[in-house]
Amino acid sequence: MKAKELMDKDFVYLNCNDSVIEASKAMENVRRFTCPVVNDNKQLVGWITAFDITRGLREGKDKIQEIMSSSDEVSTVHENDPARKAVILTANNKFVTVPVVNDDNQVIGMVRACDIVELLSDLYDIKVEKLYKAMQNQLKGVSWEELMSASALVYKKTTGIKISPEEYEKNIMNSTFGEAIWATGGLEKFFAGLISVGEMVVARRVGRAKK
Amino acid sequence: MKAKELMDKDFVYLNCNDSVIEASKAMENVRRFTCPVVNDNKQLVGWITAFDITRGLREGKDKIQEIMSSSDEVSTVHENDPARKAVILTANNKFVTVPVVNDDNQVIGMVRACDIVELLSDLYDIKVEKLYKAMQNQLKGVSWEELMSASALVYKKTTGIKISPEEYEKNIMNSTFGEAIWATGGLEKFFAGLISVGEMVVARRVGRAKK
Repeated sequence: MKAKELMDKDFVYLNCNDSVIEASKAMENVRRFTCPVVNDNKQLVGWITAFDITRGLREGKDKIQEIMSSSDEVSTVHENDPARKAVILTANNKFVTVPVVNDDNQVIGMVRACDIVELLSDLYDIKVEKLYKAMQNQLKGVSWEELMSASALVYKKTTGIKISPEEYEKNIMNSTFGEAIWATGGLEKFFAGLISVGEMVVARRVGRAKK
Repeated sequence: MKAKELMDKDFVYLNCNDSVIEASKAMENVRRFTCPVVNDNKQLVGWITAFDITRGLREGKDKIQEIMSSSDEVSTVHENDPARKAVILTANNKFVTVPVVNDDNQVIGMVRACDIVELLSDLYDIKVEKLYKAMQNQLKGVSWEELMSASALVYKKTTGIKISPEEYEKNIMNSTFGEAIWATGGLEKFFAGLISVGEMVVARRVGRAKK
């Protein structure tokens, strides 16, 4: 995924000569705490946050150029950079928004922290059931019942708690990947558990074949 | 993980009778675009964003109570709620911050979108190598070389591209879970690939045992 696929296009461009008062109204209307300041060619020349605006209003400043940060102080991503780059910038610097530029340094969008949360959160929301279905699909010829019964056994081995295959099924129907990761104590442990189930299913199949 | 383990404690409390000007300075100092308004017992009674402040400054409002939103309009999470609840609120409503309250409705912290990005991003950053090590650990008695050689075979079967076990190893050493998910086309497919590798390793081991 590229930065341009993640960016928000609904933002405010400011100009050096815009009035601080008008800029404050524009930012309130679009509900954006940060804005790029651009020249007539839409190239990034500065950066405004709501903090610059409140200070500017208090001190009676007139123009955006009197209160903006220089573009040197702004981290940008290129539209074709991996979306991941914007995520790292946001995470490491606690940014609210990262501007996205094209080859001509024109600002064409903004990656917002809340959009990143939505994207990453979708990954978490995938049902554990779906991962089991993928596993069943992969381990051809294994029935859903075999999978649940192996899972209940692995669960007992790991936690010491006895659970029926039916109860186990009910649990995974209601839980998401995100919950499962927290519950098992991390991604590696979650995967190890699933692999363990797959292994048990294969072992039982081989056992049956020998009889 | 609970909301209280994810929340930021470095925020500004505002009071109904605080001056808009002083509040704006406090928010600039701590660099927070949103603030809870609380009573003397630290209980939530309202909410202020930088947009309320800029409008208040423009219109010459004096006190916070003249510009704040009512606490009815604010979504909160309880300190013992799953952190996940704050993530969903942030993703669905494009929030910058979600206040965290205790049993007495006192505001004890704020979950920020950028903190969520950092947390979710850490998950993405886990090396694929680590997942392979967990798999090796689970499939007892399987050597790293067997795992790489099975992986190279599965890779060829899936993509049609021939790759040596050494090249495959180099790839996973440099890639993260996040990259692998995008590369394989989703969590289920990534996971199916791993199961497929595990299955091939077990099949080869069984094959050797028969000889």
